[in-house]
Amino acid sequence: MSTELPASEYDGRIERVRTKLAETDADAAGWFGATSIGYLTGFHHIQTERPAMLAVTQDTVAIVVPRLERERVAENDRIERVDTYFDYPQGRPIETIAEMLNELGAKTVVADGEGAPGVMGYEGPSLTEYVDVTAQSWVDRMRWEKSDAEIDLVRESARWGNLAHRYLAEETEPGTHPATVSQRASLRASRAMLDTLGDQYVPTVRGDGPAYAGFISGPQTRLPHGHTANRRLGRGDVLITGAAANVDGYFSELERTMFVGEVSDEDEHYFEVMLEAQTIAIEEMGPGVELATVDDVVWSYFEEQGVTDLAQHHVGHNIGMGAHEPPYIDREWGTHCEERDGRDEADAVMQPGHVYTIEPGIYTDDAGYRHSDTVAVTEDGTELLTYFPRGLEENVIR
Amino acid sequence: MSTELPASEYDGRIERVRTKLAETDADAAGWFGATSIGYLTGFHHIQTERPAMLAVTQDTVAIVVPRLERERVAENDRIERVDTYFDYPQGRPIETIAEMLNELGAKTVVADGEGAPGVMGYEGPSLTEYVDVTAQSWVDRMRWEKSDAEIDLVRESARWGNLAHRYLAEETEPGTHPATVSQRASLRASRAMLDTLGDQYVPTVRGDGPAYAGFISGPQTRLPHGHTANRRLGRGDVLITGAAANVDGYFSELERTMFVGEVSDEDEHYFEVMLEAQTIAIEEMGPGVELATVDDVVWSYFEEQGVTDLAQHHVGHNIGMGAHEPPYIDREWGTHCEERDGRDEADAVMQPGHVYTIEPGIYTDDAGYRHSDTVAVTEDGTELLTYFPRGLEENVIR
Repeated sequence: MSTELPASEYDGRIERVRTKLAETDADAAGWFGATSIGYLTGFHHIQTERPAMLAVTQDTVAIVVPRLERERVAENDRIERVDTYFDYPQGRPIETIAEMLNELGAKTVVADGEGAPGVMGYEGPSLTEYVDVTAQSWVDRMRWEKSDAEIDLVRESARWGNLAHRYLAEETEPGTHPATVSQRASLRASRAMLDTLGDQYVPTVRGDGPAYAGFISGPQTRLPHGHTANRRLGRGDVLITGAAANVDGYFSELERTMFVGEVSDEDEHYFEVMLEAQTIAIEEMGPGVELATVDDVVWSYFEEQGVTDLAQHHVGHNIGMGAHEPPYIDREWGTHCEERDGRDEADAVMQPGHVYTIEPGIYTDDAGYRHSDTVAVTEDGTELLTYFPRGLEENVIR
Repeated sequence: MSTELPASEYDGRIERVRTKLAETDADAAGWFGATSIGYLTGFHHIQTERPAMLAVTQDTVAIVVPRLERERVAENDRIERVDTYFDYPQGRPIETIAEMLNELGAKTVVADGEGAPGVMGYEGPSLTEYVDVTAQSWVDRMRWEKSDAEIDLVRESARWGNLAHRYLAEETEPGTHPATVSQRASLRASRAMLDTLGDQYVPTVRGDGPAYAGFISGPQTRLPHGHTANRRLGRGDVLITGAAANVDGYFSELERTMFVGEVSDEDEHYFEVMLEAQTIAIEEMGPGVELATVDDVVWSYFEEQGVTDLAQHHVGHNIGMGAHEPPYIDREWGTHCEERDGRDEADAVMQPGHVYTIEPGIYTDDAGYRHSDTVAVTEDGTELLTYFPRGLEENVIR
């Protein structure tokens, strides 16, 4: 188990973008996205109306950040040059970036955008007013396949998510409040994680604890993205839970359909259909398997069971630094790849290093039924990273 | 006090965008942004790789959403037509949107983007491939000035933020863990808020409780956007706190510099300089006052005190549905307005209905010092919406 991405991973990532850069006519590669900057350097920051841009040339790694990030970047020895502007709009971030690029001798840049994203009301000039910019989304694509070190972090996330989920089950009973149950479970799991890891814990965000568990309940489960209602739990309520932990910026996903105290015949029926659909999907997965096939086998099973009307989404998605990442396990994924420029056939199939959530769901007028597990594709099969029991009996709270 | 935005607010907003639409040659106005859709209709959803688009014509309000949002939209009686696609990439969201616009007779659209934003890996065709699209950012601009009803929600947010902050102070002592203190305070305040409001509480998100308090501590306070370190509190630690609550999608901001047990002479000095800077900024504010002036008076005071080297950001920003919103209280705000197209002089000054955070900060090599209060600009002055005590004595935890 590992709780921090090794330095060699960042070196390898920079090397890979330099190789890609060498295949272009551009002098530098650039990134405005905070997740991409974190991925390439380990410098994690909150994306706000104050733009940041990382520039990688064959000679150096340089960044422009607002003044308030200077000290944190200074601690990062992968970033060799740090330029700052005071704030936005004063300080003129894009002009500062253009000046840095000029000093680096970068007249042409391949970047993840023509300018900084319009986050929190940011509105600035395009970088194209200063240098020649062409588009790349290299990091987004690199993130599809995780290295062993990255999968280690997702595996570690799943462990703490499992603990948080166990605490969630313990704290749940009729009459308890969803918000409070969730907060108690998150508090206990975060404390256990922080006290266990000590200095091995890598803070990457401002906030509560790193481990989290919660649920939506009752009628809100009819909605895959239901809200947390102000309503205490009653016997017979269906819950759809979610638990995870942040491990050096990586996440897993564990969701369970649970029942408070009792399970109706209808609940049991849909639970078993959902569970079988998830099992079928997991068994279909593997290296070289088309993503579309995994969605298709679930759909065929739903057809057999006569529940296609109750499905509201595809089977799952890749996961890692983002909560949802492409590729998506979707019947049209292959077609989508063909239609997008520059994709090859390998993009349509599961590859070793992909990490998927498997979460086919069924939603009636009364409740929803969905588990989600996190499954890594390996050289010769799959590895289930989440391991909270999936069966009905283990998911009834007595 | 109010905990839910009245229906008339949404009616008024739709009316205002229809007036703007009438001033263009376009047949419909469109929004891809989840916050703008929530602002105009009260339909709140999580923005993912599955695009949504709201279209407003002179006759109707229509939306395209992924299948998994259909039932929630159906409950919203302001949205008269709901089209869905199954999922992304299957279902082809942009084509679904184009088809709906076609059926609405909308050949030209003024929209908040040429296509859906690239959130969570979304990559789709531009809407411009199907209809004539020109840009507008009407909602972003409308959000600058809050109505009385909106300010009521921010005021209510500040009340629950105050309670969360009081609990935070109560739970804090040497040896406690920042994550646990934060989670206990958030748990208690959320429970009090939910139990007090009952059915008046409007859920707009999935998650823990609606009220929150937390802090960064010790050396992390040197960074305005510091991370939550895995480090228990010790006597003499400086804290920079933050507390708020979500009230029907609106937020306030309350931050305090606090001290655990003891205050060094240096701490006291910088605290008092920071406090005076904040007081000066609040006193300078008012309707018709240039935003730049408020940043300038703080800078002049910092110059007098010889601490400009310790400043890392401007004085504050507008707040409401977003954590940061324009306009920003920044020395170059007026210049920025002049340079942007379509801005008039009124944009450079504070207007009744603007709600600002006032948060000048000082950051030494050892610690940071920053309060933040939320202040509404009224017809004839200002109203301080946050009210946790600001003085040194009240912010030392004994």
